[in-house]
Amino acid sequence: MPTTTWNRHHILSLADFTADEYNAVLQTAASFREVLSRRTKKVPTLQGHVVANLFFEPSTRTRSSFEIAAKRLSADTLNFAAATSSMTKGETILDTAKTYLAMGTDIMVIRHKEAGVPQAIAQEMDRLGVRVSVLNAGDGQHEHPSQGLLDLFTICTLINPENPRLELLQGKKIAIVGDILHSRVARSNIWSLIASGAEVHLAAPPTLLPKFFADYLTPQVNTDKFFTHWQLAPALENADFVMTLRLQKERMTAHLLPSLREYHQLFGITHNQLQWCKPNVKVLHPGPVNRGVEISSELMDDPEFSLIQSQVTSGVAVRMALLYLIGSGKV
Amino acid sequence: MPTTTWNRHHILSLADFTADEYNAVLQTAASFREVLSRRTKKVPTLQGHVVANLFFEPSTRTRSSFEIAAKRLSADTLNFAAATSSMTKGETILDTAKTYLAMGTDIMVIRHKEAGVPQAIAQEMDRLGVRVSVLNAGDGQHEHPSQGLLDLFTICTLINPENPRLELLQGKKIAIVGDILHSRVARSNIWSLIASGAEVHLAAPPTLLPKFFADYLTPQVNTDKFFTHWQLAPALENADFVMTLRLQKERMTAHLLPSLREYHQLFGITHNQLQWCKPNVKVLHPGPVNRGVEISSELMDDPEFSLIQSQVTSGVAVRMALLYLIGSGKV
Amino acid sequence: MPTTTWNRHHILSLADFTADEYNAVLQTAASFREVLSRRTKKVPTLQGHVVANLFFEPSTRTRSSFEIAAKRLSADTLNFAAATSSMTKGETILDTAKTYLAMGTDIMVIRHKEAGVPQAIAQEMDRLGVRVSVLNAGDGQHEHPSQGLLDLFTICTLINPENPRLELLQGKKIAIVGDILHSRVARSNIWSLIASGAEVHLAAPPTLLPKFFADYLTPQVNTDKFFTHWQLAPALENADFVMTLRLQKERMTAHLLPSLREYHQLFGITHNQLQWCKPNVKVLHPGPVNRGVEISSELMDDPEFSLIQSQVTSGVAVRMALLYLIGSGKV
Repeated sequence: MPTTTWNRHHILSLADFTADEYNAVLQTAASFREVLSRRTKKVPTLQGHVVANLFFEPSTRTRSSFEIAAKRLSADTLNFAAATSSMTKGETILDTAKTYLAMGTDIMVIRHKEAGVPQAIAQEMDRLGVRVSVLNAGDGQHEHPSQGLLDLFTICTLINPENPRLELLQGKKIAIVGDILHSRVARSNIWSLIASGAEVHLAAPPTLLPKFFADYLTPQVNTDKFFTHWQLAPALENADFVMTLRLQKERMTAHLLPSLREYHQLFGITHNQLQWCKPNVKVLHPGPVNRGVEISSELMDDPEFSLIQSQVTSGVAVRMALLYLIGSGKV
Repeated sequence: MPTTTWNRHHILSLADFTADEYNAVLQTAASFREVLSRRTKKVPTLQGHVVANLFFEPSTRTRSSFEIAAKRLSADTLNFAAATSSMTKGETILDTAKTYLAMGTDIMVIRHKEAGVPQAIAQEMDRLGVRVSVLNAGDGQHEHPSQGLLDLFTICTLINPENPRLELLQGKKIAIVGDILHSRVARSNIWSLIASGAEVHLAAPPTLLPKFFADYLTPQVNTDKFFTHWQLAPALENADFVMTLRLQKERMTAHLLPSLREYHQLFGITHNQLQWCKPNVKVLHPGPVNRGVEISSELMDDPEFSLIQSQVTSGVAVRMALLYLIGSGKV
Repeated sequence: MPTTTWNRHHILSLADFTADEYNAVLQTAASFREVLSRRTKKVPTLQGHVVANLFFEPSTRTRSSFEIAAKRLSADTLNFAAATSSMTKGETILDTAKTYLAMGTDIMVIRHKEAGVPQAIAQEMDRLGVRVSVLNAGDGQHEHPSQGLLDLFTICTLINPENPRLELLQGKKIAIVGDILHSRVARSNIWSLIASGAEVHLAAPPTLLPKFFADYLTPQVNTDKFFTHWQLAPALENADFVMTLRLQKERMTAHLLPSLREYHQLFGITHNQLQWCKPNVKVLHPGPVNRGVEISSELMDDPEFSLIQSQVTSGVAVRMALLYLIGSGKV
């Protein structure tokens, strides 16, 4: 492992991540990616630690990724799924978290459909003066920091597999396309990409990137390399990377979109649209993909352009890095 | 580990626990509590053993507590949840248990909404002449022995952290307040507290502690230190410990209570009610808590009086002790 | 472990299993059965491997059996249950499998209600050139190879516990009774029993063994030792083993059977029916059993005749063997 200095106790948002922190995650994840290619894929780093996956919102993909990351660090894992839990018995979320704390949990990985729940739990843990770390695995439409970091790692290791660093993205043009308004993934990606010095272009129909929201984002990111578009073309022109987002089908019923077909025609990414981009452009998607909506089936499966599988693999290495950075030296 | 003699094969009820058995659990749990504070929280005691959590009734808290206890003893764990099981395919409960037996399960931790199910499974295992142990994790309104033992351990370690022993409770006054009639926790607590020589006072409205039930309990406990009340005050007066119980909200619909608000006014525990007790009184609750019903939110969160978090932590140590006592020396 | 040569990468069907392959499984399972009787039941064979149980159709029994087998080989296990998964988010099955591949899964154990799903996933893995193995844990009405192999192992170890070999079944008469038409277990059993040189007799009412289906099976098995009957007696006469099958109660509503009671009278196996068989006949059932339908309760619980518990125990040893054979030498 690289001898990085790491002081962050909880990972709740990328909004205030420093370049040093981004680089610590990238370098540590690179070490773990190397571990994952070894004959024995386990390291004893977190032996005796308990990682509790508290998923108040159902998820297979992210939960499995954290579970496999924890097990490869030799931690014990506990899975909590809201559906079968005593939450139905009227206990508050904080009470549930405090119960897992009292059972000896070292790291809580928390997903909730409401923004701010991981933050509230982290604050309560700090107020109690305990050493438990909280890792936000997706809170409402707010943030999904481990996804933002694994996307960053995927891109940086593509540019330099040996030495992924934040500054590799300087001067790159990156488009984020789709349901920006409702996407916690987009939120986390914007923070990390802006921090890298990349040029970030958002593209979405006005209902999924309303003016009030663009006006609210722009001053926050505080850079002249941030652009919003209501058409696809200007975002994709000469882009190095295109990040597509999952379209929640519920949006249709909320009358935010006329039809999936029309959405795909205007904002779906296919081989055709990529002609506007740099020749060696790559496409990302956080998954699960609605094939033929956000992205065409053919493009998704084309290893020349699609980084989707690579993102999943990066996810395990990055989550091992996060658990390692906040978990080691604690017990 | 203390060198105790332990002969009990199943843990189904506290009704016939001996003082030696209570003390063996308390002493072993104290050793494990020490393990839990070490850098490496695991011991290899049950390596290669399989602990199957057969929860025919959903539970997160108790199941997670047993799971973490088993993992810290290095056992492999299997989780069975009735909702997703072949139980829906018409198999009997005994057949399910025998299937887990045949797969090589060493200890079965069983919860069921009907009283007597763990006993029936234990009898079948004995009839078959196999060495599998059964641990009752709550059966209907009958018993919840591990909860009774963890409550006992919580109180005894508060009085003497170094050497928790049953006789520490002699002369103490302990109130059990709430839905006595339907509570398996109350049943297990009554047995352990009576065995300790404490003075036990039950308090509940007549619908939740009917005369027939008090008349049925009193001769069973066979002591002059057992009292039942339909008001809170006489139970709380000079009490050293107040055990509150969860109120199942279903009771309301069964017309056993007029309203949660009225229940809270008459039998809810708040800082105010504690003025009747000894100055250093402590309050327990098995969780999950209906805040503002059985106990006020403020009191639940007040570390000066509330032992609720301590109970959860004790739960892991006590369940490690139980798995250790019935599991070691077996393989 | 025996030094067998094993070249099969996926285990999808028994249709093309060779005698050498059957014997490799039998011999390896025999070694593991010996491991399971040791003090320490774990071997480090698959340490660092990830076995993902992808159960798109709910199952407790088979999933637990694979989970315990994987854990005894020291593998890490991931459980995926369709009910709580992102499948509900519209992802395809192949996408789900590729996600688990990208996370680093080494062996996928797959159950699906549609025939052919494990094959499709295996083909996709091969097309991608990855080393992941797929193990069919039951696909629709097609096959359930690990059940076929554990039944074979159960019978062979009964005949020769020290040295179970396929040829032990030569000259034996084996009846398979029940819902042949819908049974993936029957399909896998037919392949292994025919390969052993046993005489195989199917018995079922015409609705559950239609003429078209018998006419379709008979040329496939390509032997003069294969017989189909619409009565029980000729199948049972002088039989050495009787394999009963689970009757899906849904068949009633599809008007394939008049009543469970009538089915039991005509095709249910009881002590009475066994008088037609060899004196030391044994009865098998893949579980879960509808007591009093396929088999009488008394017979199921009679250790003189019933191999049902033995089948479950064999299941763990055989699944350890399968995971070992396809998994070792890979990482």
